[in-house]
Amino acid sequence: MTAVDPRLSINQATLKRANLAEALRATADGGVQAIGLWREPVNEVGLSTAAKMLEGSGLRFTTHCRGGFFTIPEGPGRRAAIDDNRRAIEETATLAAAGADGSTAILVLVAGGLPEGSRDLIGARSRVRDALEELAPDAAAAGVTLAIEPLHPMYASDRAVVSTLGQALDLAADFDPSVVGVTVDTFHIWWDPQVLEQIARAGRDGRIATYQVCDWKTPLAADVLLSRHYPGDGVIDFASLTSAVVEAGYAGDIEVEIFNEDIWATAPDEVVRRTAEGFGAAVSPSLGATVDSA
Amino acid sequence: MTAVDPRLSINQATLKRANLAEALRATADGGVQAIGLWREPVNEVGLSTAAKMLEGSGLRFTTHCRGGFFTIPEGPGRRAAIDDNRRAIEETATLAAAGADGSTAILVLVAGGLPEGSRDLIGARSRVRDALEELAPDAAAAGVTLAIEPLHPMYASDRAVVSTLGQALDLAADFDPSVVGVTVDTFHIWWDPQVLEQIARAGRDGRIATYQVCDWKTPLAADVLLSRHYPGDGVIDFASLTSAVVEAGYAGDIEVEIFNEDIWATAPDEVVRRTAEGFGAAVSPSLGATVDSA
Repeated sequence: MTAVDPRLSINQATLKRANLAEALRATADGGVQAIGLWREPVNEVGLSTAAKMLEGSGLRFTTHCRGGFFTIPEGPGRRAAIDDNRRAIEETATLAAAGADGSTAILVLVAGGLPEGSRDLIGARSRVRDALEELAPDAAAAGVTLAIEPLHPMYASDRAVVSTLGQALDLAADFDPSVVGVTVDTFHIWWDPQVLEQIARAGRDGRIATYQVCDWKTPLAADVLLSRHYPGDGVIDFASLTSAVVEAGYAGDIEVEIFNEDIWATAPDEVVRRTAEGFGAAVSPSLGATVDSA
Repeated sequence: MTAVDPRLSINQATLKRANLAEALRATADGGVQAIGLWREPVNEVGLSTAAKMLEGSGLRFTTHCRGGFFTIPEGPGRRAAIDDNRRAIEETATLAAAGADGSTAILVLVAGGLPEGSRDLIGARSRVRDALEELAPDAAAAGVTLAIEPLHPMYASDRAVVSTLGQALDLAADFDPSVVGVTVDTFHIWWDPQVLEQIARAGRDGRIATYQVCDWKTPLAADVLLSRHYPGDGVIDFASLTSAVVEAGYAGDIEVEIFNEDIWATAPDEVVRRTAEGFGAAVSPSLGATVDSA
């Protein structure tokens, strides 16, 4: 087996059908050093058990997925969403403390789409900002970085009204970079004519909380949410994007997060192996001398 | 029947299954004053016959769809694409001359995607610029405006490497606005956080060659190309976008261009009626006193 890049982290969504124990085992067995977790499988076993399992795995913890979904107007639904984000912040801090040295306390935030029946995109975006203001003190107190993730514009109506890296950086601008940063995910931003300059800006502002990679290929899956592929299997130029992220000063772990029915139907060990292989071929060559960040 | 907005133009793609004769008849019978044509049905009857049919219909001609698809590297394929665009320019001039008073000679350009096997998005974009330079003299000589259409980023790999209005305006910037402008299509740009400022910029630069409207709704169709809807049936805020286009000084006809299997399976007269109804409810209220542009 070729050596696995020490900066590779498996995002648990890539192993969607595996429970937490299985995901931790397959990741560690595959020679990968780090993992990003999802709230549902963590809460399935309970937070303190999950933290113990993570600690036992010896893996670094890279991100917690995910908070957000706070575009709805004020009312009980919004209060519930804010409270749920507060719990996600606590989970993130607990898991980061349980992970191996080099773990990071990062909560990925997906903004949420237009509220049912609404066409007010500008209003929805302003409520994202309001939510950040409300949650920033909690995140700061817990030592957690909220990482706003711009999602591909094809999700703008039903999943994330934050669609570009530039927009995410504008939202983050008024907060301390240790409290509000951004998620740079190749799948969502590769098409953006401004992507290289916005990655550079994110670096200058100290806002790159996490870098996630997976590939884009057409035709898109019938459910466009599930159109992600192993790095190298599609058309994304990982060399230019990864070089830009490296030059912007990001030296942390790099997650592979893939939503894809075929990959989910594959055995976790094989998925980890293919992920490491694709990462090694498509991403590692651009990481240069900064390969070992642990 | 409610009066049809005099600025409404039916883009022929909305009546995909109709031939030219049928499309012209259904549009005129529906009380619509203008039509945008597609090359394939025009060339099916031959250009001179198509021009006579258009003249006989009494309709204004608003755009010709479409040129472009010139992202491939130099070689016979690229030469063929450039030559084909030259023919499209000639067709546009001929049809505009045959349409009723107020017709406009506008050729919509879809840039094309990444060449087969390529990941070089930046290179593909630079070849779009090269093609514009090559075609601009022909367009100027023919009195035709090339209208670069930014397409939704979900088409960036396989259809159009021009994804935002700002990018289209950057591409157009070095050319005379009467020769190179942009297509503002709500479906493609509604999600863009910069859309209102870029529409204003397009107006200042005199670059809005045509304004096209249709709606966005999720879940997207399995073939994402066919996910367009009648204005008002989705989540796009036509009031803010249309007001921005009006304030930017655009006073021309407005096309409805819908790719949708269900709509294509509907009788053309009913499609024209529904289009006029949707347009009247969603778009007309924002057109204010400039309603009659003919």
